Amino acid sequence: MSEVEISPADPSGKEQQAAGLGILLQIMMLVLSFVLGHLLRRRKFYYLPEASASLLIGLIVGALANISNTENNIRAWFNFHEEFFFLFLLPPIIFQSGFSLAPKPFFSNFGAIITFAILGTFIASIVTGVLVYLGGVIFLMYRLPFVECLMFGALISATDPVTVLSIFQELGTDTNLYALVFGESVLNDAIAISLYRTMSSVKSHAPSNQNFLLVILRFLETFVGSLSSGVAVGFTSALLFKYAGLDIDNLQNLECCLFVLFPYFSYMLAEGVGLSGIVSILFTGIVMKHYSFSNLSENSQRFASAFFHLISSLAETFVFIYMGFDIAMEQHSWSHIGFIFFSILFIVVARAANVFSCAYLVNLVRPANRQIPLKHQKALWYSGLRGAMAFALALQSVHDLPEGHGQTIFTATTAIVVLTVLLIGGSTGTMLEALDVVGDGHDGPLGESFEGNNANGYIAPLYDEGTSSGNKLKMRLKEFKNSTASFTALDRNYLTPFFTTQNEDEEEQALL
Amino acid sequence: MSEVEISPADPSGKEQQAAGLGILLQIMMLVLSFVLGHLLRRRKFYYLPEASASLLIGLIVGALANISNTENNIRAWFNFHEEFFFLFLLPPIIFQSGFSLAPKPFFSNFGAIITFAILGTFIASIVTGVLVYLGGVIFLMYRLPFVECLMFGALISATDPVTVLSIFQELGTDTNLYALVFGESVLNDAIAISLYRTMSSVKSHAPSNQNFLLVILRFLETFVGSLSSGVAVGFTSALLFKYAGLDIDNLQNLECCLFVLFPYFSYMLAEGVGLSGIVSILFTGIVMKHYSFSNLSENSQRFASAFFHLISSLAETFVFIYMGFDIAMEQHSWSHIGFIFFSILFIVVARAANVFSCAYLVNLVRPANRQIPLKHQKALWYSGLRGAMAFALALQSVHDLPEGHGQTIFTATTAIVVLTVLLIGGSTGTMLEALDVVGDGHDGPLGESFEGNNANGYIAPLYDEGTSSGNKLKMRLKEFKNSTASFTALDRNYLTPFFTTQNEDEEEQALL
Repeated sequence: MSEVEISPADPSGKEQQAAGLGILLQIMMLVLSFVLGHLLRRRKFYYLPEASASLLIGLIVGALANISNTENNIRAWFNFHEEFFFLFLLPPIIFQSGFSLAPKPFFSNFGAIITFAILGTFIASIVTGVLVYLGGVIFLMYRLPFVECLMFGALISATDPVTVLSIFQELGTDTNLYALVFGESVLNDAIAISLYRTMSSVKSHAPSNQNFLLVILRFLETFVGSLSSGVAVGFTSALLFKYAGLDIDNLQNLECCLFVLFPYFSYMLAEGVGLSGIVSILFTGIVMKHYSFSNLSENSQRFASAFFHLISSLAETFVFIYMGFDIAMEQHSWSHIGFIFFSILFIVVARAANVFSCAYLVNLVRPANRQIPLKHQKALWYSGLRGAMAFALALQSVHDLPEGHGQTIFTATTAIVVLTVLLIGGSTGTMLEALDVVGDGHDGPLGESFEGNNANGYIAPLYDEGTSSGNKLKMRLKEFKNSTASFTALDRNYLTPFFTTQNEDEEEQALL
Repeated sequence: MSEVEISPADPSGKEQQAAGLGILLQIMMLVLSFVLGHLLRRRKFYYLPEASASLLIGLIVGALANISNTENNIRAWFNFHEEFFFLFLLPPIIFQSGFSLAPKPFFSNFGAIITFAILGTFIASIVTGVLVYLGGVIFLMYRLPFVECLMFGALISATDPVTVLSIFQELGTDTNLYALVFGESVLNDAIAISLYRTMSSVKSHAPSNQNFLLVILRFLETFVGSLSSGVAVGFTSALLFKYAGLDIDNLQNLECCLFVLFPYFSYMLAEGVGLSGIVSILFTGIVMKHYSFSNLSENSQRFASAFFHLISSLAETFVFIYMGFDIAMEQHSWSHIGFIFFSILFIVVARAANVFSCAYLVNLVRPANRQIPLKHQKALWYSGLRGAMAFALALQSVHDLPEGHGQTIFTATTAIVVLTVLLIGGSTGTMLEALDVVGDGHDGPLGESFEGNNANGYIAPLYDEGTSSGNKLKMRLKEFKNSTASFTALDRNYLTPFFTTQNEDEEEQALL
């Protein structure tokens, strides 16, 4: 290629050339990340997981580009656009989370996951917000208005599943712990973004006629709405693929095209009507895997799994590179070191408040043999690293909040993201080994299964009458549990036969 | 979903909501196109091929959006951005053209294809440009400067492969004719864009020190540079997949990630150094299919084929919808009806000049049993419908050219695109039947094969000594043919063993 000469180009060609160079650089970083990640994994070097490596590559290349005289129009291709993140990078990642979710451990821990994700994120957001506000009041750190503190609390409570989970998978940890961490970090993104938006809309409207209950109500409305729209889209797709008769050989392409459009449809439908796209696409993923997937032809099944896996790993890796690059390029206001320091302290406290109080609640209702052990709680507490979601929301807060405030939040978030990804990401392996939760493997005995034989775990009321505190609360929580159990019966007897073609063998297959 | 309420959103949420609605609409149109196209194909209704259907859907929805009071920020999601087209929609389409190309008929007709694509497109551009210029001089139509006429000639000479080829495939036409139409329309896009850019850079520079030879030289430089960079990237990927040892089971995702990044890398590399991305990615596609592909594991092979097919059909369908929508939304200057009318006339003449003169040249050197029959020439002439490439270049010319000129070219191109896609696209089936080139099927006897046993077709000089005219020219062209033949030997003896793993069985497989 040495004989290739650069011919003088016209202005529009010039712009396209810059775009080409920008994208070329991005592809090269992607390839580098993949290869590096692969090598590190093969050498079992867990101190630098793939996500951290990608972040570092982005940071280094960004710093180099910052020092050198890179042209501005090439640089323009590297700015982290929240819109691009939310519309194109996030959907495949979240969908894949739902799609690849093993329903058995997930649903058997569903109550706990929901508790950690909804209640826990709520607690963490409020605790962080209040602490940051109080810190401002007593002049410990930069002072922000209360609503903005809550916005910061919400955005910084979004934990990132990518890095920790890849290490969990690599090391093979306890299935229940894996399900907890996975479920919590996925759902919690959705909660955090809903909370952030709710707070943001509280802020932009007249603050007088708002009360706390109304905020919670609106939040729940969004959540339930998004969830049901996602489930509805998933069921629609199941029916479509059941009856359209596309599972014959030469229509594979059409079948796949339609199948990959559905998740995106679900996301955009929810966003379009003002709901939360990520809650919606997550549940579309779960429903599509459980019902629609088995209506596909075998070739398309294999293709769809590989496709979503591919797209989401590209998006995931790209997000970390992109974030690293942008962190190196953006203007930061390092004047508020105190703010950064104390907010790191506060999120550690807030996450402890989240995990340990929710675990206490969950253990109240669980039978003695299914208590969440303290070491699992500690692992869960430790796994709270902050990633792209927090970063994207912080970037958005720069636009949403007055001059200076948004910048402070953004810089603090950036620092927290880099620190947690590199430190927690790098030490998860050690932590898991120290807590002795490594190597139970996925084939260990599960507490109970998703199917009918789980009566001893879910419904049997005899095991857990020894404990005494909070009997009324316990009753309530039990009722909730029973409803979960009856859902599995509903699924087996009505949903699966109605929405899928091959009733018998498919059911077992989907649950593997 | 009826209970879902639209909660009041903050400004940034509002923008995202608009984006969501815009994309939602696009997805719905995509699904509609796929389903409609499928139904039309199943009912063997060839008067409205999928591309025409997509264009119509785009036109109709665009017209509706134009009448109704659609918000501007939703509309913004539908403007045809040339950058988006060139950087994201075009690469997969062109790559898939190269990747899905059957090497046997393509390479056995390589000389003819190259003649039609390079020389023919040159002729067509010049003829159109000169006619349009003369038309302006004698006040037949709107008068444009000569360079701008040539730019128009170049952009309008880009023929679109999508619609015609899908019908060819459906009806099963003569393999050689298929290869000719396919090869010409794919390569000709690359030539047309290079010509357009060359003319555009001629225009933007001082016109005094430019001469015709220099322009041709620069064009050839770009073409050869792009071709060799594409081939080099392809060979690099072949070596990588041969030696990296990624074809074991649990690395399938890594293997596929890298494989799908290479084409894009090739495109951006070429664009980044100021060459033609589409020439580059086309040859990367050919090389990757021929060499790298066979180094993949079997699962990844199956996945990669399906993946590129999927992505390119999504991009193709989307291009037509997007184009239709934009045509309905853009401002057009219909004041120059004369320009439109005469330019349609001129491109018909120019295409005739292209096809029949090139076919004459090709027939000069071909043996009697391999002459391109007149009915194939007519079919080739008829298949010259204009699509997205012409449209995108015309849209770019609105920025490149002075006020009024670009607009005129754009409107004329739009009219030509709509007319040819709907009319030619709709009547290709009838045309093929009228010319009696239907139904020979792909399993008919090929002129010669890509492998060694083609001596009678390529090299044997005895068959074609009866004709008399242009002996010197004939000799030259023969030499070129011989070099093509020696390339197939080079491929068999050196390239394939060097770049692929399984020498024997793979070679046959790749050639099927």
